[in-house]
Amino acid sequence: MIQQELMNDLKLRWGRMQQAMQQMGADGCLLAGGINLYYTTGQMYSGYFYLPAEGSPRFFIKRPNGCEGEGVTYIRKPEQMPELFAAEGLPMPEKLLLEADELSYNDYTRLQAIFQPKETGNATTLMRRLREIKTPYEISQFRLSAERHAQTYAEIPACFRPGMTDLELQYEVEKRMRQNGSLGLFRAFGPNMDIFMGSILAGENAETPSPFDFALGGGGMDASCPLGANGTRLKEGTAVMIDMAGNYTAYITDMTRVFAVGKLPELAYRAHQTALAIQHEIEQTARPGTPCAELYNLAMAFTEKAGLSAYFMGTKQQAKFVGHGIGLQINELPVLMPRSKELLEPNMVFALEPKYVIPGIGAVGIENSFLVTEKGLEKLTHFNEEIIQLS
Amino acid sequence: MIQQELMNDLKLRWGRMQQAMQQMGADGCLLAGGINLYYTTGQMYSGYFYLPAEGSPRFFIKRPNGCEGEGVTYIRKPEQMPELFAAEGLPMPEKLLLEADELSYNDYTRLQAIFQPKETGNATTLMRRLREIKTPYEISQFRLSAERHAQTYAEIPACFRPGMTDLELQYEVEKRMRQNGSLGLFRAFGPNMDIFMGSILAGENAETPSPFDFALGGGGMDASCPLGANGTRLKEGTAVMIDMAGNYTAYITDMTRVFAVGKLPELAYRAHQTALAIQHEIEQTARPGTPCAELYNLAMAFTEKAGLSAYFMGTKQQAKFVGHGIGLQINELPVLMPRSKELLEPNMVFALEPKYVIPGIGAVGIENSFLVTEKGLEKLTHFNEEIIQLS
Repeated sequence: MIQQELMNDLKLRWGRMQQAMQQMGADGCLLAGGINLYYTTGQMYSGYFYLPAEGSPRFFIKRPNGCEGEGVTYIRKPEQMPELFAAEGLPMPEKLLLEADELSYNDYTRLQAIFQPKETGNATTLMRRLREIKTPYEISQFRLSAERHAQTYAEIPACFRPGMTDLELQYEVEKRMRQNGSLGLFRAFGPNMDIFMGSILAGENAETPSPFDFALGGGGMDASCPLGANGTRLKEGTAVMIDMAGNYTAYITDMTRVFAVGKLPELAYRAHQTALAIQHEIEQTARPGTPCAELYNLAMAFTEKAGLSAYFMGTKQQAKFVGHGIGLQINELPVLMPRSKELLEPNMVFALEPKYVIPGIGAVGIENSFLVTEKGLEKLTHFNEEIIQLS
Repeated sequence: MIQQELMNDLKLRWGRMQQAMQQMGADGCLLAGGINLYYTTGQMYSGYFYLPAEGSPRFFIKRPNGCEGEGVTYIRKPEQMPELFAAEGLPMPEKLLLEADELSYNDYTRLQAIFQPKETGNATTLMRRLREIKTPYEISQFRLSAERHAQTYAEIPACFRPGMTDLELQYEVEKRMRQNGSLGLFRAFGPNMDIFMGSILAGENAETPSPFDFALGGGGMDASCPLGANGTRLKEGTAVMIDMAGNYTAYITDMTRVFAVGKLPELAYRAHQTALAIQHEIEQTARPGTPCAELYNLAMAFTEKAGLSAYFMGTKQQAKFVGHGIGLQINELPVLMPRSKELLEPNMVFALEPKYVIPGIGAVGIENSFLVTEKGLEKLTHFNEEIIQLS
């Protein structure tokens, strides 16, 4: 069921988990969140994944869905796990890791009551740190997503008709995303980060701040999802920033391009060129060991020198980051922000997104997904980076 | 910002919350989950809603997004709340309700440490129970969703082209959903319930069990989202069950119709008629006071009498419910299942979905959204209920 390439990759991930667990003195890690289950098993299921600090993993599955093999046990409820551990001679963990930032309070305390560990550590912290360094299989999935993402962006000019709204344009783009293989789902870490397939920002709507941790905002269609396109008419002189998700595999690439209806004011073109210059400088200089904070500071320095500080990452509210890790979720580690203590490491994958909001016009700038290699950065998302004329 | 009709409705909701809190001896309820924030404030924001058992609500908001007015305070972090309570002479709750099934373990314990209540109760249980009985404004939103949902279903035959796959059909339906106002997001209670805009099941794929709490399954496009359409070719003799979300407002209607490519085997038509007969009987007999378990038992009795037990709600795995509450999430209370202790009450809104999976052919049956009135059931989702011929 799982091909050999993925199986080898899963074993690599388990090895990294066990190494980290041994270093932190943890005896076992029990995962129940969908994203971590997928990361550790290559599948989504209802149940648990248990990895002891030494030895082979166990898969406890609540509903039959074709999973069979070594280590797989079907259970009705988590309370059965201790007796199954005992039956297999698997020691109960004294220090157990549970997903403290992902499990609900009730689910977490239920598992604590079942395992009664002397100490409980945070599996969310561990898994987010491990997932930050991508494996060969994961990188291959990013490359597939990036290629299809770029293919969809190439089809955007054909989606445009004069007089349409941002939402009408988005519906056309969404359909092409799906036809090019988008899974549709937009997965984020943390609560209240709902957005539908991505964001198109045009005109005044680009200034509307996001109530959540997104780089930019937009008012959205409805108070129940206050983000992105809001029905703005794409009239002459409007910048249209398109930041739709690259979810063509489970690994999400992030990519933004700007389109123009008619001619934009000079400020918009100048800000766009500043964003490209920031990207160019970071592409030339960033390598393993570069502090993530330095990338933000570099972007700020270019911005200040260009006199564009009032527009950088928003106007009314300005996001305090210029990029972020990507993976199974859109907001993985590292975060390119001034207070980051992290250094770039090989096989991190992140989105770099210097953007400017031009009041009344829209947003300009660039976003691409980059892989950190031993030598520096490799861009994954290739497509025309200038402001693209729509009419 | 919030129109008067919604404001009056919010006050009704707050009144119900306070009545329930007084009955259970709770002093205050602090909500942070997006769905409950939207329910209590009509908006999504990053922050908290606090309602004391007596007195007026407070809104603690982390990011400016245009919310102003009585009771609104901006905060950087939840640790500021006690001093703000003190400044306003608002007593700290001795018994505090927190969302134990929605907040992460870390978020919940952080709030507990801030408020240090003598006792903590479960706000998730309270809110799910209150949200089960819909208010006038909520019912008006369901009616809007239902109308647009039916309008989209009327456009489905025009989406079909001979030789297409279930996914190709779904992309066309998705676009029409969006054009008719779908917000896109599919919101569910509980972890790992991701699905993208709904489900189309055809042919053998209808038998694939769901790893999660959905009525039916389907293999999906990818292991990272194992649900729904999987690329099945819609060939002659295939039943195509379309169960796409009715998220045209924040309130989701649920509605399923079956389409046929060519002629189906007799068993499929007979099972479909049995589903319609179940629905008809329930429409005629259900009223406030009817046990939810009785609706399931009635469906099972009709099914057994028709000799269709092996096909009811799946084959390899059979869902043990025949309907469920709907609202801001697709899986609200009540659940129409044999072990339910609940009785129907006026202003509940639920989906009734007797369905049969016919091996190799697909799924048949019906799903509509119903409002419980003083007199009985009112169907919200009106559209041709027979198997609709596609070619």
